[in-house]
Amino acid sequence: MHLVQFSRLEKSVRVKSGTSLLDAARKAGIELNTNCGGEGICGKCAMIIIEGDMRDRITWPFTRRQRDEGYVLACLSHIYNDLSVDIPGIILHGKTAVPLSGDKDDSHVSTDNLLHYKTLPVVQKIYIKLEKPTLFNGQADHQLVSDEVKKRLNIPTMQMGLKIIETLPRVLRNNHYNVTITVGLRRDIAEIMDIEAGNREDSNYMIIVDMGTTTIVAQLVNAHWRSTIDQATCYNSQSVHGSEVTGRMIHAERKGSAVLQEIIVGDINRLIRILTDRNGITPENITAVICSGNTAMEHFLLGLSTSNIRRKPFIPVTVEPPPLRAGEVGLEVNRRGLLYSLPGISGWVGSDLTAGILALQMHRQEGLSLLIDIGTNGEIILGNREWLMAASASAGPALEGASVECGMRAEPGAIEKVTIESGEIQYRTIDGEDPVGICGSGIMDLVSVLLNEKIINRSGLFIDEKRTAILGDTQKRCFYLKKDSIYITEKDLENIITAKAAIFAAVNILMKRLSLKFSDLETIYLAGAFGNYLSIESAVNIGLLPPMTSDKIQFVGNTSLKGAKLAAFYQDAFSELTSIRHMTTYYDLLGADDYVEEFRKAMFLPHTDINYWRTVS
Amino acid sequence: MHLVQFSRLEKSVRVKSGTSLLDAARKAGIELNTNCGGEGICGKCAMIIIEGDMRDRITWPFTRRQRDEGYVLACLSHIYNDLSVDIPGIILHGKTAVPLSGDKDDSHVSTDNLLHYKTLPVVQKIYIKLEKPTLFNGQADHQLVSDEVKKRLNIPTMQMGLKIIETLPRVLRNNHYNVTITVGLRRDIAEIMDIEAGNREDSNYMIIVDMGTTTIVAQLVNAHWRSTIDQATCYNSQSVHGSEVTGRMIHAERKGSAVLQEIIVGDINRLIRILTDRNGITPENITAVICSGNTAMEHFLLGLSTSNIRRKPFIPVTVEPPPLRAGEVGLEVNRRGLLYSLPGISGWVGSDLTAGILALQMHRQEGLSLLIDIGTNGEIILGNREWLMAASASAGPALEGASVECGMRAEPGAIEKVTIESGEIQYRTIDGEDPVGICGSGIMDLVSVLLNEKIINRSGLFIDEKRTAILGDTQKRCFYLKKDSIYITEKDLENIITAKAAIFAAVNILMKRLSLKFSDLETIYLAGAFGNYLSIESAVNIGLLPPMTSDKIQFVGNTSLKGAKLAAFYQDAFSELTSIRHMTTYYDLLGADDYVEEFRKAMFLPHTDINYWRTVS
Repeated sequence: MHLVQFSRLEKSVRVKSGTSLLDAARKAGIELNTNCGGEGICGKCAMIIIEGDMRDRITWPFTRRQRDEGYVLACLSHIYNDLSVDIPGIILHGKTAVPLSGDKDDSHVSTDNLLHYKTLPVVQKIYIKLEKPTLFNGQADHQLVSDEVKKRLNIPTMQMGLKIIETLPRVLRNNHYNVTITVGLRRDIAEIMDIEAGNREDSNYMIIVDMGTTTIVAQLVNAHWRSTIDQATCYNSQSVHGSEVTGRMIHAERKGSAVLQEIIVGDINRLIRILTDRNGITPENITAVICSGNTAMEHFLLGLSTSNIRRKPFIPVTVEPPPLRAGEVGLEVNRRGLLYSLPGISGWVGSDLTAGILALQMHRQEGLSLLIDIGTNGEIILGNREWLMAASASAGPALEGASVECGMRAEPGAIEKVTIESGEIQYRTIDGEDPVGICGSGIMDLVSVLLNEKIINRSGLFIDEKRTAILGDTQKRCFYLKKDSIYITEKDLENIITAKAAIFAAVNILMKRLSLKFSDLETIYLAGAFGNYLSIESAVNIGLLPPMTSDKIQFVGNTSLKGAKLAAFYQDAFSELTSIRHMTTYYDLLGADDYVEEFRKAMFLPHTDINYWRTVS
Repeated sequence: MHLVQFSRLEKSVRVKSGTSLLDAARKAGIELNTNCGGEGICGKCAMIIIEGDMRDRITWPFTRRQRDEGYVLACLSHIYNDLSVDIPGIILHGKTAVPLSGDKDDSHVSTDNLLHYKTLPVVQKIYIKLEKPTLFNGQADHQLVSDEVKKRLNIPTMQMGLKIIETLPRVLRNNHYNVTITVGLRRDIAEIMDIEAGNREDSNYMIIVDMGTTTIVAQLVNAHWRSTIDQATCYNSQSVHGSEVTGRMIHAERKGSAVLQEIIVGDINRLIRILTDRNGITPENITAVICSGNTAMEHFLLGLSTSNIRRKPFIPVTVEPPPLRAGEVGLEVNRRGLLYSLPGISGWVGSDLTAGILALQMHRQEGLSLLIDIGTNGEIILGNREWLMAASASAGPALEGASVECGMRAEPGAIEKVTIESGEIQYRTIDGEDPVGICGSGIMDLVSVLLNEKIINRSGLFIDEKRTAILGDTQKRCFYLKKDSIYITEKDLENIITAKAAIFAAVNILMKRLSLKFSDLETIYLAGAFGNYLSIESAVNIGLLPPMTSDKIQFVGNTSLKGAKLAAFYQDAFSELTSIRHMTTYYDLLGADDYVEEFRKAMFLPHTDINYWRTVS
């Protein structure tokens, strides 16, 4: 247990190791009016660490100066020792935190423009109390409910399916005309999806899913409170049909899309079951599933043909699927619950990137920014509020911890950080558990350390026989990070270098095409499902990122999930995804003659042209 | 065969007996740009009979002077002898009839305001030719189609279900990107329902259904050409569970709504099959079914509970059902075809009446008009463009030819007209076939004649033993219209008088409540599924209608079907049904203390208070 003191507010609390600072504040009776679901987006939980050490390193959205002053986002910061904390800009009224009067200056958070979103989730629950009809005021049940909901939501039109209309006479009369209406948004049309007895406004749960090629991350959220309740992760079981999407597309062409659909739906259903069971929520209370992911994954989920995505001119069936009944594809939630597959950009740049742009608000920034989203493909977004460009590089899953022998995803027991301390290679695991493998952030650290220690050369080959060993009874040389169990091989290193080279080459091509220098960029965002930690220094050191002053580079975590959650919580944010889709131009690297050359040059650590590497400021 | 001459246009043609004048004109090569589907609504087929006799008597929409001049609506006029005809206001260019230049005066038709409707049916077929995608212009299939349709229809948003999206890659590529899109309107949202190879714009068929308690009438129409192709009629098979809706509601409460639903859906499916088979059209090409009818019938069709309609305060589940997939209730048309159940007013005044108001454009008229729609219930609408009132009287099916021993619906072989000529009672059957029974119009004529001939007294009892007989081996006295086969009994007469009394009393109550005299009315419309003929004189003589100058009373036929067809052909007309619903106030006769008294007074022929009957001008 660690002691957390909120001295100015005269509150303190003892919490378990690993508790988030936001949860600690809540436990101390400080209710903050956050509204992004704990994804570090709204900035409303900014706190200042006065004393004690925070180990989390999500650097976004603070300026360097703020970070130096001790600013952290409480939702993303976890407690591993005693702390003294201040909450800027609030005073305390009883149990409620209130902004200091006159203190409207939230300018420390770069994402303030989020506040303009209306606080209506895509699916809402609305409690209504209706007047009993009389002979002189005798509206039909359907119109009585419909008119009240239209009035409450201030909308001109409203759909309600026959199956719901059918239930009205009984539900209304059995509950004294006091009922909760679930209203879902399907395109611009609001639909009454469900009607329940009494007031059920706050049991509006949703599942947010980031469908990665290698890893699937799902969160259970409460859309009424805009809070994240829990998260679960699994490998994408489609991997048996290929670690990259192309293999799976070929399989789908041979065996039918239904095969791939069944697998991804099965994975998501398993995650839903884990999340609902673990939190005592029935799937009936899940009103919506919001999915982002690459376009192929989205096609697989919907059972659509991917044949034309992998053939010139690479045309997907859809980049903006309609909202569907989740049950139509086999997802096990409320029987009228909706599935929102977010809009993407092209066959090779999916909704994980539009969601990323939304989460980072790149489409509203004046300055140029670059988003590098590391997944099995590396996707790149470059632009500002005037224009956005997208490209996709086939990187492979090495940076996600797959295609590396001892790799694993970011889970308890994964080595997430590797450092040199007093000449000794040290590591840290997620949640401090016994190490079972290395996740992406640890892999990048390890390569960086091996390079610095001259255990490998710039081509990723072992050059120090003393500090390496032969792996078991194979011919392969390896470096043991943990004796006899966790190691890295030259094949692993090749996969890692290939991945970072593919991504860096893509970035470079896009910059060249637009005649931009790295110094023209205001920010580089590095995104991916790496958990809470990723070392910018290591990423620069191995050449995944160009060397820039570190306050220009920000690790922003899983922006696909963050953006999808924003879209779920705010209808306005959801519609912005369509605008983002329209304003983003896809640049196909297959049309770039110099891509192979750039890729080859990046197959070094950090880069063949080391001079070039020094020029960037 | 009869010769029809269009002298001024120098055309003539020979046609079979019973051919409509409009079809004859078409056969002569004169194409009129009509747009109501031959329901006598648009008035664009007005013709003048120069020589020869037209037996049809739909008097609407002409003034008395026009009728005297020989004006008829060609779509509703059938040819039984040689004719000489002129078509006012057109000249002929080749095969096309063109309005005389400068002749914008269509004022002879009272329904000119129809022309403001946009010519878009609720479900449209649109042929689109798309550009093949390239590497530089590579939209997803779904967005390519959707954007083109949005552009063509000038709408901001568009729904498309997964099942259709799925088919796009194949249909587009197999047809050089030339396809026909079926677009349906669901509330304010357009939905892409189907995609077909090539140009299929003109195969947009619909079924229009008037669901009467006793009789169901269905028409097959082409919504692209706005033409009526065929009509079929059947008795409502639900009659086994009660001749009036209340009995059926009780049955539905005991056995479940599904029982009643199955029967009406079965009836409509049979009519659809007859119509499609007879005209060589596959049900796959039926894009929509548009149904009007009383609220209970609509509930039965949708499988909704009618329990609260028959209990105070008489609340229906819905008065404006959403458009559904027709298949959802079991209708056998295109698998994504839509079912539109039109909006009604209350539990006891249904969409047959809103459709009637629409067909007659009562909601746009400055003067007061009264609509009496005779079905198993008699429904009454009174008002003008400022306000509308509705009431419903339980009349029973006698005026529809049911609950009368030799009664039948208006079909070939039905006696539709009864007259006295040179002291002899004469009759005429529909299509001149051998008489098999008497339909509603014939029944009213017969009662009127029996009264005039003093064969019955004012209470409907036989008083002339010479001209009546004992029916077979019963004790019952009857009047034989056709020797030994077609007759009327005192029980029949009682049912008929009850029906007309219920309706007249309702009219009278409504007039009293609003302090109106019959002379305040500009028009009385008499509507019902009577075929093409109904004698206004007989209706007045038996006391169904008040005695007014006959040019103020118009027989307008089945306005439920006419209005439903307008709603099908014109989206604007469809939305007006909702406004009509909102502007119409339902007056419940159960709340009228004097209704029983008024009913009792009307149980005479024409009325107890014969003086009162004389005062109306």
